Amino acid sequence: MSAREAGARQGRGRAAQRAARRQAIVEAALELIAERGYRGTSLAAVAERAGLTQQGLLHHFPNKEMLLVGVLEERDRWDLAAAADQGWRSETLTQLVDYNSGRPGLVQTYTVLAGDSVTEDHPARAFFEQRFRAVRAAMADSLRAEFGERLPGGLTPQQAAPLLVAVMDGLQLQWLLDPEQVDMAGAFRDFVRLLTGEATAGAPSQPTTPEPGGEPAGGAEGR
Amino acid sequence: MSAREAGARQGRGRAAQRAARRQAIVEAALELIAERGYRGTSLAAVAERAGLTQQGLLHHFPNKEMLLVGVLEERDRWDLAAAADQGWRSETLTQLVDYNSGRPGLVQTYTVLAGDSVTEDHPARAFFEQRFRAVRAAMADSLRAEFGERLPGGLTPQQAAPLLVAVMDGLQLQWLLDPEQVDMAGAFRDFVRLLTGEATAGAPSQPTTPEPGGEPAGGAEGR
Repeated sequence: MSAREAGARQGRGRAAQRAARRQAIVEAALELIAERGYRGTSLAAVAERAGLTQQGLLHHFPNKEMLLVGVLEERDRWDLAAAADQGWRSETLTQLVDYNSGRPGLVQTYTVLAGDSVTEDHPARAFFEQRFRAVRAAMADSLRAEFGERLPGGLTPQQAAPLLVAVMDGLQLQWLLDPEQVDMAGAFRDFVRLLTGEATAGAPSQPTTPEPGGEPAGGAEGR
Repeated sequence: MSAREAGARQGRGRAAQRAARRQAIVEAALELIAERGYRGTSLAAVAERAGLTQQGLLHHFPNKEMLLVGVLEERDRWDLAAAADQGWRSETLTQLVDYNSGRPGLVQTYTVLAGDSVTEDHPARAFFEQRFRAVRAAMADSLRAEFGERLPGGLTPQQAAPLLVAVMDGLQLQWLLDPEQVDMAGAFRDFVRLLTGEATAGAPSQPTTPEPGGEPAGGAEGR
């Protein structure tokens, strides 16, 4: 092996090691978020859980916001992989909302960071701006694949996409504040029924006003 | 005047003075939020604008979060007064969303504070929890007054209310991040058309040749 080849191999080894270290940090943060929520997840606690010094952690993520962006990117990767397995259909989104009911720590992290990101020069602003563009486009594409150029409820995929995203985000906020009163998954289903025209089709879906509490919606993670 | 009467009158004078001082602080904060946004609105800047020391301000509001709650309460009072003048109808909400497009500083303040409030022990958590309950109930009532026990789009007022709130909040987030790409008021109108069944009524809402003799189907959108 020439010195150059050895150097290149060593470089690849370092890059792989760096990626593994980064992954370990993100996993430590995910664990802490599930256990202690957003506020309990300090950089110091994450570093300790990942077996690093805080200085070592800062080498990978310059601040708490960018670490949490790393966590949300990881969540997006899972969710996209799961969705790709099933094909993106409106039923997939409903399942995602159900799944989110079981991980309030992550939903909380997303809600806090997304809300904060709208301020000037916030470190996560670019991430959220790009993410929302990508998610709106992906949803419009998947609605088009499922329904064509007009959904049964009357909107185009382009019109429905920002509303779908808005409903998911807005319901998360209400549910995190008041899990006893807000049935996030049920309300999301109502919205999907509006989009797909099922809300008017046939008989009323429920006898009268469904009081929350029929289904233990927020029971997961002991909140 | 007895000493007791004089004392009571003095007490009322002090309470009025205190309320006036509080109002001046909230107005100073509103001005600064409009000029500089959420981050630029420090307690020090608000105190200076209101002609108080920072210590004097802290006497009225113990921290930035509670000052901003005061600001949002003030906004709610205006909005409720405006809505009461017109009667609460879905058209009133559309006008409110239009109006919000012209005050991004306040929308930003609301979005940041609401997002942050979902964390444990946040000073504004109780405010938002109660506010969402009150707003959902008020919206359900006004939808019931306008449409009865079922909206033309198929949902009950109880089902539609959390979705209306979620769409408003979620669209604000997307619009603050990306005002060029997100037409907050237009998207909200699309959602109202879903609720009211107008999205499916008649011709597609996109520009097409009006049918002879038919009513202008998409006309509601042009408001």
